[in-house]
Amino acid sequence: MTTAEGYPNLKFVVLAGGVGGAKLVDGLSQVLAPENLAIITNTGDDFQHFGLTICPDVDTIMYTLGGEANADTGWGRSEESWRVFEEISRLDGPSWFKLGDLDLAAHLVRSELLSKGCTLTQATAHLAISFSVPNSLLPMSDQPAPTLIESDQGLLSFQTWFVEMAWQPVVKQVRLPDEIKASKQVVNALSVADVVVLAPSNPFVSIDPILNVYPIREMISDIPELVIGVSPIVGGKAIKGPAAKMMAELGMEATAAAVASYYDSLLDVFVFDNLDVAVSFSEGIVFHQTNTIMNNLYDRRALASHIVDLALELIRS
Amino acid sequence: MTTAEGYPNLKFVVLAGGVGGAKLVDGLSQVLAPENLAIITNTGDDFQHFGLTICPDVDTIMYTLGGEANADTGWGRSEESWRVFEEISRLDGPSWFKLGDLDLAAHLVRSELLSKGCTLTQATAHLAISFSVPNSLLPMSDQPAPTLIESDQGLLSFQTWFVEMAWQPVVKQVRLPDEIKASKQVVNALSVADVVVLAPSNPFVSIDPILNVYPIREMISDIPELVIGVSPIVGGKAIKGPAAKMMAELGMEATAAAVASYYDSLLDVFVFDNLDVAVSFSEGIVFHQTNTIMNNLYDRRALASHIVDLALELIRS
Repeated sequence: MTTAEGYPNLKFVVLAGGVGGAKLVDGLSQVLAPENLAIITNTGDDFQHFGLTICPDVDTIMYTLGGEANADTGWGRSEESWRVFEEISRLDGPSWFKLGDLDLAAHLVRSELLSKGCTLTQATAHLAISFSVPNSLLPMSDQPAPTLIESDQGLLSFQTWFVEMAWQPVVKQVRLPDEIKASKQVVNALSVADVVVLAPSNPFVSIDPILNVYPIREMISDIPELVIGVSPIVGGKAIKGPAAKMMAELGMEATAAAVASYYDSLLDVFVFDNLDVAVSFSEGIVFHQTNTIMNNLYDRRALASHIVDLALELIRS
Repeated sequence: MTTAEGYPNLKFVVLAGGVGGAKLVDGLSQVLAPENLAIITNTGDDFQHFGLTICPDVDTIMYTLGGEANADTGWGRSEESWRVFEEISRLDGPSWFKLGDLDLAAHLVRSELLSKGCTLTQATAHLAISFSVPNSLLPMSDQPAPTLIESDQGLLSFQTWFVEMAWQPVVKQVRLPDEIKASKQVVNALSVADVVVLAPSNPFVSIDPILNVYPIREMISDIPELVIGVSPIVGGKAIKGPAAKMMAELGMEATAAAVASYYDSLLDVFVFDNLDVAVSFSEGIVFHQTNTIMNNLYDRRALASHIVDLALELIRS
């Protein structure tokens, strides 16, 4: 069950949003052979800004795997500069979405490739090569699939709610688009998956948008031997971002158990943090408690190793 | 005929392309009251790049009038930096069209305004305010009006020919689009023009694209008291750019006289350089010889003063 190089010989596919997802993906990339790890990223928060196509989750994962992520902010590039953005402000352009000079280069190259007829998957592959990302980094779809937020301040585009309004409007409902189809590369990756991991990303605006793309949910229900969810709620709070706030607003308890319950029918395993109350409400799911907080590269690798070992053990048994 | 402030009380409208046009416009802006100088700029060399709308001639004039132009290159911004462009190259993006960080900010803000439904005229006005340009800076049309070059290497988009191929392919014909309409702001400016100046820009790819926009040529024939052409050919050469080369390729002599002949029916006055052979082949045109080379700010102002004085003298007489 392990290769000559010592890597487990299982095909992992991770569904991931931005920051939390990127950290776990980074850990997994250190304990799995490149060809055994594919990442399906949320594109529901992609948007058009300044005429460019901006894909925040794809880029966060790409920068992280390329060793170019800004560890302080959790988004954007390390060694970033802001000359263009400062000039945009001087020209009275919109400044609610911060765009660094290096980050902007990726948006420009992506937009150029799209304008020349590339799919988003192809444009991402081009960029991933430049960032020396050895894994398949797959946008969930080549179609635009914008997530909308129905809030107490009306229907908002995702980035308006998330960045411009700092996710403060109360969420009544997350609206996902109908009839979005997965790319053939996503279908191919899932068709050979042994293990699918739902990263510790926001269930409603990171993971659900991916599961909503046909036939991703259906394939995950059918194909892999194991589906492992990792809780984004730790000690009753989100590590970062609006997950806990949204759970309360959507009428759920902000607990790891509630996340497990939300994903219930898909899951074989649920990994949650030592800080949370041990629960195992569902007989069909293996509940597994460990440290899930990833403050540094060691933590990322440790959690990833833990998940991979668990998968090997469960599949062997 | 002069205002209380000493400015001549005539309405000037200048038709201008990029570098040469910008220099004369800069001179005129120093000797005319802001409300008495409107500039109609070529947009035939506008193009889409990286998903952005780039307007090289509009920007060259805007940067020049705003005191932000790069005096060394003739295009782009002073105190420019290249962090985005260098990163684009690292990401294997196209590098044939150099984009500075500051320049990019203008393209981004323009593209954002256009994507929000602004016309090109409105977007230009927004930017011109930020650059403290007091004159009406008017794109010739709000419709895209791309100039195409029929060359010995096939039909080329303007910037492919001009920048990417460094205007080396032999020009067989310049193809201008049909049925382009002027903006209402252009029509308004021409409707009150006393003097129209054809700047020393390329006749075929800077001035003709403007005259081709309906009803600019017709209004220039009818309305102003004077139409003054300024020769872009000095001593049988173009100061910069492909004008002389194109004249030869299009079967004309590369002389100031040939430019006058080309514009013939529109002109009342033709200003040409001391270096050129004095000719006056057409009885209907006043030929006027002076220094037209604008190496510095003093030259710009001197030529502009000369043209304005000449206009005042001819209109008074």
